Amino acid sequence: MANSQAIEQMVSEISNDLTSGAAELALRSINIFRAVLDEAGLELTETREELAKTARMLLKAHPAMAPIINLSSNLLFEADAAGSTEELQKRCDQALTAFEQQLCNNASRIADYVHDLIPFGTTVFAYSFSSTVISSLMAARSRKSFRVVCTEARPSMEGRKLSKVLADSGIEVVHTFDNAMGLILPSCRVAFMGADCLARPGLVNKIGSWLLALACRELNIRLYALAGTEKFVPDEILFSFEDHERPGKEVWEGAPAGVTVVNRQFDLIPFSWLSGLVTEKGILFEKEIEKHIEESSIRMHPALEAAASVH
Amino acid sequence: MANSQAIEQMVSEISNDLTSGAAELALRSINIFRAVLDEAGLELTETREELAKTARMLLKAHPAMAPIINLSSNLLFEADAAGSTEELQKRCDQALTAFEQQLCNNASRIADYVHDLIPFGTTVFAYSFSSTVISSLMAARSRKSFRVVCTEARPSMEGRKLSKVLADSGIEVVHTFDNAMGLILPSCRVAFMGADCLARPGLVNKIGSWLLALACRELNIRLYALAGTEKFVPDEILFSFEDHERPGKEVWEGAPAGVTVVNRQFDLIPFSWLSGLVTEKGILFEKEIEKHIEESSIRMHPALEAAASVH
Repeated sequence: MANSQAIEQMVSEISNDLTSGAAELALRSINIFRAVLDEAGLELTETREELAKTARMLLKAHPAMAPIINLSSNLLFEADAAGSTEELQKRCDQALTAFEQQLCNNASRIADYVHDLIPFGTTVFAYSFSSTVISSLMAARSRKSFRVVCTEARPSMEGRKLSKVLADSGIEVVHTFDNAMGLILPSCRVAFMGADCLARPGLVNKIGSWLLALACRELNIRLYALAGTEKFVPDEILFSFEDHERPGKEVWEGAPAGVTVVNRQFDLIPFSWLSGLVTEKGILFEKEIEKHIEESSIRMHPALEAAASVH
Repeated sequence: MANSQAIEQMVSEISNDLTSGAAELALRSINIFRAVLDEAGLELTETREELAKTARMLLKAHPAMAPIINLSSNLLFEADAAGSTEELQKRCDQALTAFEQQLCNNASRIADYVHDLIPFGTTVFAYSFSSTVISSLMAARSRKSFRVVCTEARPSMEGRKLSKVLADSGIEVVHTFDNAMGLILPSCRVAFMGADCLARPGLVNKIGSWLLALACRELNIRLYALAGTEKFVPDEILFSFEDHERPGKEVWEGAPAGVTVVNRQFDLIPFSWLSGLVTEKGILFEKEIEKHIEESSIRMHPALEAAASVH
């Protein structure tokens, strides 16, 4: 297929992007699935297989991205349910559009809740690079004045990207390194972070989030995680996220002999450590999160099970 | 004076050294004071002035180095007490030699205590770059097997220097970034750090030490600070240490407009958060530290008061 190489190229670009948030990568994944569906002349089974193959490539590129898992699962279930190529096209197109709209609507609803959590004229802390956090802070900034403290978020330094994006949008930014959290947090009234995925045991997010949550608890600073419910995944996936590791050379290129470099990606934080989980359904506390999980059917398409495990 | 430029050069080298520990820099300061004393043909008052000038340069180069403050104070008090150039030379030489011996003896006694704190075959955590920590780990390694986890210690990355030194001496080293403390600490049985200075309010050390201490407390990991009693300073000095700041460009060269980069250097940790302070006098707990401070005369020479304040 002529399109196949272009799709692999698009996936590879996503794979090399270590600084974008999950929602941003999910939007780009939607475009990749659209490109697959645009391939002309495929049979029903072939299309299903191409979609599953693409989904597995995306999950391999970013094993720990809940919206990509849920988007891919939704899509593959829709493809299974279709009786003809035409029906598949229609069902999949609707699923992609619905997911896209859900992502945008969720971000906008979350932003409304976040606005009320920021006292006028105060300093807030924001960790790592989450498009949900960014869109919320930008929306709040259009209505009130506050400044934001960011840290680097080693090793990928996506905190620098966050600082630049916020500063470019006219928000006053104070930037420091991650170790300095203990010194800088006392000047902040509230802290925000995104989430890579959510399940019964808690929230998985960029490494360093555990230290942030611990420090906020110690210093009595309210900490909110901002995440649409598209971030909920089956429990077993959450644990495989937590163990996700990347090459040591991304931390220390040319480390000397005798030094093993560890590059783990994610921390797990219990919901009880948060002041709340800000979702499109409102600010949820520990008990409400449990209730949400019980009431939702969080399931993964069987074709993705092996790919979603990072081991 | 022909020597004067050479001395300024030596001080400037110390000033640019952001990764050496306090004890190491104190030993180099001793050599600088010896060079001052070697200057031929100076009167008594001139020598005193030269010593005070050099001490102030050293304190300006590294405002937050307790052994340099105490070394300089001792030396200036001895110079004051001398009635002739010959007596000054003799008294100062003795003071420098005594301080040098004290530094070496203290490190060796601390190493003996540390050896007993490391269970055979376990993993220990070491933070930042402290020559006391390094000499203790090396001495322990000659008698038992263990491995060491180090983190980068942003922004100066002296954790890399620590990793290399330990690995070169045959210790198995695991290295990661500072944010990953929460994930890596549970694999460690005990944690060690140095100290830049000590006084009634607690211990001042490389930024990140507060997060380390908090994480150790949360995870029930014993944390010891290793420091000879030459690290005790008057309380008011401790607070000026804590506020010490360096240029933001050392954290982020070329940060975008609208982003203020903060580069604070030190954390303050209460003694109650430590499992113990390992000194040449034994492992001291909170109450014993208080007693030590009450019983010692920790005083600073008046000629240094302005220089030791970092504001």
